[in-house]
Amino acid sequence: MKLYDAPLAPNPRRVRIFLAEKNIEVPRVAVDLGAREHWGEAFSAMNPFKMVPVLELDDGTFISESIAICRYFEEIQPYPPLFGVGAVGKAQVEMWNRIIELEFYRHVANAFRHSHPRMADREVPQIAELAATAPGRAMAALAKLDKVLQSREFIAGNAFSVADITGLVTLDFLKLAKLEVPVEMEAVRRWHAELGTRPSAKA
Amino acid sequence: MKLYDAPLAPNPRRVRIFLAEKNIEVPRVAVDLGAREHWGEAFSAMNPFKMVPVLELDDGTFISESIAICRYFEEIQPYPPLFGVGAVGKAQVEMWNRIIELEFYRHVANAFRHSHPRMADREVPQIAELAATAPGRAMAALAKLDKVLQSREFIAGNAFSVADITGLVTLDFLKLAKLEVPVEMEAVRRWHAELGTRPSAKA
Repeated sequence: MKLYDAPLAPNPRRVRIFLAEKNIEVPRVAVDLGAREHWGEAFSAMNPFKMVPVLELDDGTFISESIAICRYFEEIQPYPPLFGVGAVGKAQVEMWNRIIELEFYRHVANAFRHSHPRMADREVPQIAELAATAPGRAMAALAKLDKVLQSREFIAGNAFSVADITGLVTLDFLKLAKLEVPVEMEAVRRWHAELGTRPSAKA
Repeated sequence: MKLYDAPLAPNPRRVRIFLAEKNIEVPRVAVDLGAREHWGEAFSAMNPFKMVPVLELDDGTFISESIAICRYFEEIQPYPPLFGVGAVGKAQVEMWNRIIELEFYRHVANAFRHSHPRMADREVPQIAELAATAPGRAMAALAKLDKVLQSREFIAGNAFSVADITGLVTLDFLKLAKLEVPVEMEAVRRWHAELGTRPSAKA
């Protein structure tokens, strides 16, 4: 088994944190995104959508998409459960993971990808208006997450889950987008700080 | 149990098709999106992100996000399995569902939502350049799906899954975005036609 990884990108980090929480070691192969290694033929054969991370299984099967890779490891090593417990618990983790991705991460990514010179050949064309409006939408979503986090420790309830991993990675990604958590969002700041002190955060 | 639903929107339809495939009946409450009923206080209390569908459980728990609702029903009634079988199968369904959402659906939605007058108060501001560039990105992703579908019946392998439901709903959504499947994408056209003849497609 091999994990095609990139040290600085947010999605591969989701998988690394997930694996650290499960205490699973997987050999990693660094893909040089700066040199556009993921655009080459060898990488495209593994993932035609040309994105990291990709997990290669021993039988040559490739699994791309960070959350799909995490799901694979949840199935082969269920403890500790990071996708929720029971029908309602699993649905709630899925719900919060999606809300963070679609309502928060998406806009942080747009703010960064549609403005940063390094992304000019990946977002073609970069749309300045999208970069300009994305921060407002990201922060509106974050304010709603703040409300939820006022009454519980983790975003999907009282247990740490993959939705918190998506939250941490997005919050750490704010800096690249030149954004920060507003001072008044105390619950988000507490959540961010606590997630950041878990040993897995270093992954 | 109650499903807050809207007849014309693509995401609630994903849940209806999923339920039809599982042969599960759930009482439905129609939400009038045209009258912005989902922006009112009653609906926002169920889902602060103001989107349909929402599932209300008998104990008052609310689950939003179409795929999270589908996951709930997969857990309480596993047969037929629509999220894949086994660790690799489940990861592959998750991977293809996400690829269709993030690489295809997202751009079809942008083409529609950032250009249609009816969406002007939902996408604020509508970004004309985003609407103009989205079709090209949607079609580039569809060409990759076409290649995959040349060698198998369903997108995640040889069994129908929730990823096919996301595919069908997105393909039917093309019309609203004034797009269509190019004639040369024969495998996608075959897939679309076959999915459209399943009884669940009427849901």
